[in-house]
Amino acid sequence: MSDLVEKPLASKIVFNGNLLNVFSDQVELPNGKKASREYIKHPGAVAIVPITKEGNIVLVRQYRYPIGKVLLEVPAGKLDKDELPDKCALRELEEETGYVANNLKKMASIYTTPGFTDEIIHLYRAEDLIFSKPSPDEDEFLDVETYTKEEIKEMIADGRINDAKSMLALLLAGI
Amino acid sequence: MSDLVEKPLASKIVFNGNLLNVFSDQVELPNGKKASREYIKHPGAVAIVPITKEGNIVLVRQYRYPIGKVLLEVPAGKLDKDELPDKCALRELEEETGYVANNLKKMASIYTTPGFTDEIIHLYRAEDLIFSKPSPDEDEFLDVETYTKEEIKEMIADGRINDAKSMLALLLAGI
Repeated sequence: MSDLVEKPLASKIVFNGNLLNVFSDQVELPNGKKASREYIKHPGAVAIVPITKEGNIVLVRQYRYPIGKVLLEVPAGKLDKDELPDKCALRELEEETGYVANNLKKMASIYTTPGFTDEIIHLYRAEDLIFSKPSPDEDEFLDVETYTKEEIKEMIADGRINDAKSMLALLLAGI
Repeated sequence: MSDLVEKPLASKIVFNGNLLNVFSDQVELPNGKKASREYIKHPGAVAIVPITKEGNIVLVRQYRYPIGKVLLEVPAGKLDKDELPDKCALRELEEETGYVANNLKKMASIYTTPGFTDEIIHLYRAEDLIFSKPSPDEDEFLDVETYTKEEIKEMIADGRINDAKSMLALLLAGI
């Protein structure tokens, strides 16, 4: 393997927002040249495939402002500070859908867009669900919808489900 | 379906970088409250699963500065201004791997992280490959590696392949 590593020379925060922290670093490339690298630091996230005892899948429909569209996705959310991914998965599932999972299995941890962010999403499948009560964040608006595996397959095939983490989580869960 | 749409009230560019354009917008939520939305505008991208006539898969290994790791990924790249995705897929495949594809099929278009960017990636499978000559960008460093489908399956299962677009493209290509 050739040397591919870029050495950091200097790091600067260029936007410190409520959601996004944007950095611009100076790096030394493998050929000794200098270049800049712009990226977002992200706390990490979880996404969950909730499977009911009937074998159906619980999804959430929500508006995604950056693309101006309503997307159908698996329940997901960002890690709170110092929160363990397993705990976050159970919390987000319950907050968004009202389901408490008694069987949670991690399937994979994925980098969503390593070209410009360090975001990692831990993917879970959740079974043995008991319905409690959804409690979305005050300013979070979403619809909870349940689909059969056949419907999910169709919606992945025809593009009605087109959110990357959701498609990958559903395929890894064997849908 | 409940009303989930957020209405834009004002938009401001807060960082205008070489790679990233970061916006902070004011929006009206479905409940009439106001909130801010921070996001990245992205030109869109392509990712390609190149399948040789022996049925093997061509991947690229490259350093991803935001995560400080070398990742094994499918060939991919950003759309040039006004470039059609099909043309971009053929260009990026040839630049990164040296392969010219005589059979290109679009599999899906996916939103990578719709919570904070409008990035869409068009996923392709490429066959009938003829080896020409790689010509990566001057400051792009990558290794080209070829694997059997069985090796790819193992590396997805054990996390050696953990880039979301790559995993999803490989699974959609039936690997």
